Amino acid sequence: MTENFVETTAEPDTGVAFLTLNRPEQRNPLSSEAMRDVTAALRKLGDDDTTRVVVIRAAGPVFSAGHDLKEMIGRTLEDEQAIFDTCVEMMQTVQDIPQPVIASVQGAAVAAGCQLAASCDLVVASSNAVFGTPGVKIGLFCSTPMVALSRAIGRKRALQMLLTGETIGAETAADWGLVNLVVAPEELDAQTRTLAAKITKASPLTVKIGKQAFYRQIELPQGEAYAAMAETMATNAITCDAQEGMQAFVEKRTPQWQGK
Amino acid sequence: MTENFVETTAEPDTGVAFLTLNRPEQRNPLSSEAMRDVTAALRKLGDDDTTRVVVIRAAGPVFSAGHDLKEMIGRTLEDEQAIFDTCVEMMQTVQDIPQPVIASVQGAAVAAGCQLAASCDLVVASSNAVFGTPGVKIGLFCSTPMVALSRAIGRKRALQMLLTGETIGAETAADWGLVNLVVAPEELDAQTRTLAAKITKASPLTVKIGKQAFYRQIELPQGEAYAAMAETMATNAITCDAQEGMQAFVEKRTPQWQGK
Amino acid sequence: MTENFVETTAEPDTGVAFLTLNRPEQRNPLSSEAMRDVTAALRKLGDDDTTRVVVIRAAGPVFSAGHDLKEMIGRTLEDEQAIFDTCVEMMQTVQDIPQPVIASVQGAAVAAGCQLAASCDLVVASSNAVFGTPGVKIGLFCSTPMVALSRAIGRKRALQMLLTGETIGAETAADWGLVNLVVAPEELDAQTRTLAAKITKASPLTVKIGKQAFYRQIELPQGEAYAAMAETMATNAITCDAQEGMQAFVEKRTPQWQGK
Repeated sequence: MTENFVETTAEPDTGVAFLTLNRPEQRNPLSSEAMRDVTAALRKLGDDDTTRVVVIRAAGPVFSAGHDLKEMIGRTLEDEQAIFDTCVEMMQTVQDIPQPVIASVQGAAVAAGCQLAASCDLVVASSNAVFGTPGVKIGLFCSTPMVALSRAIGRKRALQMLLTGETIGAETAADWGLVNLVVAPEELDAQTRTLAAKITKASPLTVKIGKQAFYRQIELPQGEAYAAMAETMATNAITCDAQEGMQAFVEKRTPQWQGK
Repeated sequence: MTENFVETTAEPDTGVAFLTLNRPEQRNPLSSEAMRDVTAALRKLGDDDTTRVVVIRAAGPVFSAGHDLKEMIGRTLEDEQAIFDTCVEMMQTVQDIPQPVIASVQGAAVAAGCQLAASCDLVVASSNAVFGTPGVKIGLFCSTPMVALSRAIGRKRALQMLLTGETIGAETAADWGLVNLVVAPEELDAQTRTLAAKITKASPLTVKIGKQAFYRQIELPQGEAYAAMAETMATNAITCDAQEGMQAFVEKRTPQWQGK
Repeated sequence: MTENFVETTAEPDTGVAFLTLNRPEQRNPLSSEAMRDVTAALRKLGDDDTTRVVVIRAAGPVFSAGHDLKEMIGRTLEDEQAIFDTCVEMMQTVQDIPQPVIASVQGAAVAAGCQLAASCDLVVASSNAVFGTPGVKIGLFCSTPMVALSRAIGRKRALQMLLTGETIGAETAADWGLVNLVVAPEELDAQTRTLAAKITKASPLTVKIGKQAFYRQIELPQGEAYAAMAETMATNAITCDAQEGMQAFVEKRTPQWQGK
């Protein structure tokens, strides 16, 4: 049953695993079941040593239209709270797993779909992708999406998207810092793989240390962030991979990672 | 007397209320009296159910030249503290009232005038508007304006404006995220109304929930922000307006808001 | 011995002091000794009343290649921790001294070299300068550099630089908010001096109050920031320089600063 909502395709030879939202006819709704499936799939990939980068992509013309409204009509407060807790858990799992997660956005990413893209470490978007938080139009302000959105694009631009409900194109999203790379639609898969390949060359231990450290330090006042990061970097420096990497750099040779 | 400093024009049919800084000959100084008037006018509009969006605009060629220097010369520390407390209260009231506030900036917005624009939820600017924090040039660093400014445009750009005292044009302000929309001078009123009209179509209850939630979550670490917003969104979801909005969306019809 | 790593050239007539990284053949490595020298030189300039702006620049084609890897191979955890503590102390001293610090970047600024530029209040870059955090490629994630980098350019762009290890050019760095001004290589010195001269015209007391206040308020929630800044600005307002500056502005004459 799980397989209906999200399909996982690992490619151990490249180290890239693809997690594909797979309900294209319904515009890939993030129902509670779909969100639990994504979370479970992410955790499974997180524990898989052969996976070095995770790509979240979607089947069909739409990346994701967000929550499944049908399951949110006529429900109790407890029901609604459970839905948003499930949503938050999914978004945080994207940032909690050790591997970098790239959103590869081929179409409209709106509401929780926009949030999912914004929660990924990196975003590659087709030039015809659009991003939006239109909840205000249906009486349900995109309050959880704005946590990720406002941290990516800043206050005024986030408020503009949230208060008007209008979408922005991929180029604007890149200009505002939500998207890292805009590519032609037919280049999306290839360019996503090229970006992933830049990361899979690195020591997975180092990438894991770095990703975890990034999200830790970004929430701290600068002085506390520096104290934490000086310790993180010292600990990183005595790992075998860092010692090998520095030695290889000095000797002008390719490093051999041991993952420890 | 109040009417001299700021003029309020409500248009109940459109739901837009205009608050006009109205001392054009003095370049709309934000004297203590003027700031108290703006705060009082904002609070009154905040309590007015027919007002769905507030626009802050200014008469004459200058939006606002900032504080009234004449009332700051030869004063005690207590006097000065009272002036800045009054200023902070005005700026925070802009963000505290339930309705979105749009700054419609037709000319120079400098020092506390720049801060007033930066404190608004959204900013529409004429192409000949300029923004600046020139306090450094007169020995009084723009320390309260930088709270709003640095949160809108980031560290290095804020420091550049603050340390040099130089103004930036409307296009640069838009590129840096201080301004949402730059328009031709003769289009300022129409484009401000067009932006406001996008917001007045929404449920006022939903907009109120969203604006309040935005400023709450933006100050929190991400994990705490998510916990708060999941609760906010669940509470929002069981309101009549959200239920109506979702139902209307599913049925492909226009929602009827009840404001509860 | 100290003089080998960093050279200080004060120009009391202009009020600008230049701190030059001076190991061009080794690409200006930030060894522990070099970092201690920079910190000591900054503190000395910080205490010098004739210095109104500090410029950090570098000799040779490279601004700085970052840490001296040779001193980080085969060391204990305590040794590594001491290196990063020394690094953090240098970066924080840039922001702690009362005068604004401008990075004048003529070439590649990578790893801790990128962090040093990002830690300066303002950055002027030659059009052929590049910025990068390539530690991931040698197994040592740029975890301390990302504290300064992510606070300057935001989450997604910082993660892109950190995870791929790729450099960005000066124009991209300016577009992302890391660099204030991009100039032709032959214009770097002149344009850096022009920027510095805009600041040396101001009251040094006012600039000191403002710089210190900036870094204090940027770490606080907005409400606390406003409370702190209202007090800062009231205290600033009763200084002789602010009173003189306001009076001079009203009288349309040039102010005479007393520095108190």
